[in-house]
Amino acid sequence: MSISNGKKISLKELAALCGGRVIGDENVTVSSIASLDVAKEGELTFLTGNKNFAEHSAHLKEAKIAAVITAENLPELPIPSIRLKNPHLGLIAALNYFRKELKISYHIHPTAFVSNTASVAPDAIIGPNAVVEDGATIGAGSHIEGLAYIGRYASVGKNTHIYPGVRILDYCVVGSNCIIHSNTVIGSDGYGFAQDQGQHIKVPQVGNVVIEDNVELGACVTVDRSTMESTVIGEGTKTDNQIHIAHNVQIGKKCLLVAQVGISGGAKLGDYVIMAGKTGCIGHVKIGDGSTILACGIVTNNVPEKSYVSGYPAKPHQEELRIKGAMRKLPDLIKRVRDLENKLNEQK
Amino acid sequence: MSISNGKKISLKELAALCGGRVIGDENVTVSSIASLDVAKEGELTFLTGNKNFAEHSAHLKEAKIAAVITAENLPELPIPSIRLKNPHLGLIAALNYFRKELKISYHIHPTAFVSNTASVAPDAIIGPNAVVEDGATIGAGSHIEGLAYIGRYASVGKNTHIYPGVRILDYCVVGSNCIIHSNTVIGSDGYGFAQDQGQHIKVPQVGNVVIEDNVELGACVTVDRSTMESTVIGEGTKTDNQIHIAHNVQIGKKCLLVAQVGISGGAKLGDYVIMAGKTGCIGHVKIGDGSTILACGIVTNNVPEKSYVSGYPAKPHQEELRIKGAMRKLPDLIKRVRDLENKLNEQK
Amino acid sequence: MSISNGKKISLKELAALCGGRVIGDENVTVSSIASLDVAKEGELTFLTGNKNFAEHSAHLKEAKIAAVITAENLPELPIPSIRLKNPHLGLIAALNYFRKELKISYHIHPTAFVSNTASVAPDAIIGPNAVVEDGATIGAGSHIEGLAYIGRYASVGKNTHIYPGVRILDYCVVGSNCIIHSNTVIGSDGYGFAQDQGQHIKVPQVGNVVIEDNVELGACVTVDRSTMESTVIGEGTKTDNQIHIAHNVQIGKKCLLVAQVGISGGAKLGDYVIMAGKTGCIGHVKIGDGSTILACGIVTNNVPEKSYVSGYPAKPHQEELRIKGAMRKLPDLIKRVRDLENKLNEQK
Repeated sequence: MSISNGKKISLKELAALCGGRVIGDENVTVSSIASLDVAKEGELTFLTGNKNFAEHSAHLKEAKIAAVITAENLPELPIPSIRLKNPHLGLIAALNYFRKELKISYHIHPTAFVSNTASVAPDAIIGPNAVVEDGATIGAGSHIEGLAYIGRYASVGKNTHIYPGVRILDYCVVGSNCIIHSNTVIGSDGYGFAQDQGQHIKVPQVGNVVIEDNVELGACVTVDRSTMESTVIGEGTKTDNQIHIAHNVQIGKKCLLVAQVGISGGAKLGDYVIMAGKTGCIGHVKIGDGSTILACGIVTNNVPEKSYVSGYPAKPHQEELRIKGAMRKLPDLIKRVRDLENKLNEQK
Repeated sequence: MSISNGKKISLKELAALCGGRVIGDENVTVSSIASLDVAKEGELTFLTGNKNFAEHSAHLKEAKIAAVITAENLPELPIPSIRLKNPHLGLIAALNYFRKELKISYHIHPTAFVSNTASVAPDAIIGPNAVVEDGATIGAGSHIEGLAYIGRYASVGKNTHIYPGVRILDYCVVGSNCIIHSNTVIGSDGYGFAQDQGQHIKVPQVGNVVIEDNVELGACVTVDRSTMESTVIGEGTKTDNQIHIAHNVQIGKKCLLVAQVGISGGAKLGDYVIMAGKTGCIGHVKIGDGSTILACGIVTNNVPEKSYVSGYPAKPHQEELRIKGAMRKLPDLIKRVRDLENKLNEQK
Repeated sequence: MSISNGKKISLKELAALCGGRVIGDENVTVSSIASLDVAKEGELTFLTGNKNFAEHSAHLKEAKIAAVITAENLPELPIPSIRLKNPHLGLIAALNYFRKELKISYHIHPTAFVSNTASVAPDAIIGPNAVVEDGATIGAGSHIEGLAYIGRYASVGKNTHIYPGVRILDYCVVGSNCIIHSNTVIGSDGYGFAQDQGQHIKVPQVGNVVIEDNVELGACVTVDRSTMESTVIGEGTKTDNQIHIAHNVQIGKKCLLVAQVGISGGAKLGDYVIMAGKTGCIGHVKIGDGSTILACGIVTNNVPEKSYVSGYPAKPHQEELRIKGAMRKLPDLIKRVRDLENKLNEQK
């Protein structure tokens, strides 16, 4: 499908918006963008790298695509292009320009429940059947969508988007310019029990969660409240879906957590940590700034900054690769050892 | 517990319903069904295979069970039986016959919010405190349960059942005869960021999700919307719970995805692909028609059709089994190599 | 942050509450508790073990902390202490004493929908925009929070806390003194299909889920209903977040299931089973009483009681450790075998 909203723009203007430069006719105007394989005549499209370049280049012309956003260093193309060192910034500008903006005509939807002790900024939006409990605060420009829940004395900063079904539980704090996707839970109890005479006695979880500014959390993420202090997700961190973040965890700034990650209680991630899909770490472990945990890796010991690890237990990726490679030779190795044993026995 | 709803049926009639044949008295009537180990006198039960056949056969008589649905090829039984090549089809017919049907007496529940620009078929049902936003469409016979959310310009086909807490976000499309279980999210943003000067800049996710007909999605599943096009789940595909499907993924027809599967962005599954529990694949990988990924397998390269793979990286299952078997011999192998080294050193 | 609610207590009184004894001035009073590293002058804190004891001991005095809850067997401290064999029981008592209690002033919130065929105990609380369907039962002292859903003929016992967004679907049963965290789904359909001529035919899932007393389920947990009987979670079992429990599963009493566990259909766990994070088991497997499955372990065969297993397939942990240790030597082992082969060839 094409992304369009009725507006049109010249390549010159779009290049100015995204800091790119035009090669070819800068007066060409476009009014929609679509992926390379579905873009139609007169549309704008996007080409990242030079994989299959010749084929793509021919297609651009054949399909009569109007223009393409692409990388500064790609060869000449048969149609006008907007060039950027990082072409994704051009794509972002175009998508933001052509995307449909939904206009919400209400402030607080009549079916929403907002406690009269809650404080909702005059230009915030509270959607249908949403709930904002006693003492909660919603900042300017924020949008609490339908069926979302903001707990007692919880607060949401400015220009934050809370999708349908999100639960921000009592006393939790979400910063400004955040995006929290549907059915994510912020502030469920940490998993803490004391053992006493065969019983699991609940340790009350009376801390909270603090989500700093510019954080995005995917759908069906769970972030547990701390026992006494705050579970913290640092500024600019972005998570994918279905991530579990346990109590007392401290996540640094601008981390990236991919789907199905699990972070155990009290773990501490530095800044710019990347945890790929299905990774995890045990409790109270420290992962240094700028480290990457590759897919399915499980961190069981502290990891120094700028580490690049994989496997279970997580170890330097080169070592893990050597082990994985060697494992495929293992059945053969067993035969070779048997042969050696036979030869040595024959010698006797 | 027994499944019953007050109706009774003769074996003859039930056999006609499911395409089976009766061995024994076809005029026996039954009014409830229960599992073999809990069925009581006069009830119908179900027996799949011939494991512990003698014991089960004796129990059927002892417990005075009235009749049993079972496989065509099982030996003679001491009570009347309905026989089918695939006895599960008999079980399905019986369960459908004896299950309680809940009658919903309202069309749109008075506590639901339905936008006056939404279109709801006259015989569709919208449950308590559900939300149907502007421009949404709900087809004939569909049931949107309480506290479910249907976003702006989203559409739901005919005879589709949307359970409580499901989120079908703006512009997403769900087909006919689908079942979407509780708290599943369709149309959360794909996880896409461009890196620019140490910032993670969000790539707007302005595509949608298309769920074709006859699809069933489990509970707490997340399906991300595509960046520009559609994330697609093909006709007849069935998923278990807590599955993550990333943006731009294309899933073919009649696939089976078991619990906790994670499918990365842009991956493409053919038709009749089976992904067992806790499996995953990396981005942009292709999995051929009819392939099976066994439990916990992680697909890192394209997989040809009818593959049967396991492990991480996923490889032919026989190879993985050989490696796993060899690993258990590895500690011993290290000793054997040390012995060989010692012997050779002694020879010198 | 400090945990306080305006109440104060002497060490003598607090020791009596938790069964501890005071060393030092028992008349010292405290009005808040905080973690060791953030506690301020005059506050109560908590110290578990003797790791870094000298440092912690000096800090307690320097920070002018008023008193500390700690273990009976720790050495003398420079400030008054409450000593217990299990100091967590002291922490629990203090947290319960100092936590803020929210007072809810309504019985059934005016925005909630409660069917007039439902039965809600007079002192139960139903939160804003919650839904209690036909025939449902809510016991004395239970709290159904905002936007939670209680299905038709479902029942919730006494003094149970149902957090926002929980779905307890038709006919399911939750016991007394349970805590169910946000967005958890109880009673979604089991994943069962019969194959017939290339179609996946749904096996109706018409059983239910029974959650016994004193159970706590984390956030975004899914528990599927049984095909004909009940999926059961036994008394006193506690689960973390994002756990999948399939249909017909039987979980014993006082089990602990850590985050992201997946339990396949028909599996049976005994009492006091511990499944660590990201573990799983295949269908119909039995895990004996008191067994522990260590992180990421996948159980593929029955496990006798008091087993302590890890790996995939799960095996005795000592064996898994030996294999994992040997794997790190494997690349080197391959070289050593090559050397041996070369030496033997040279001998010829």
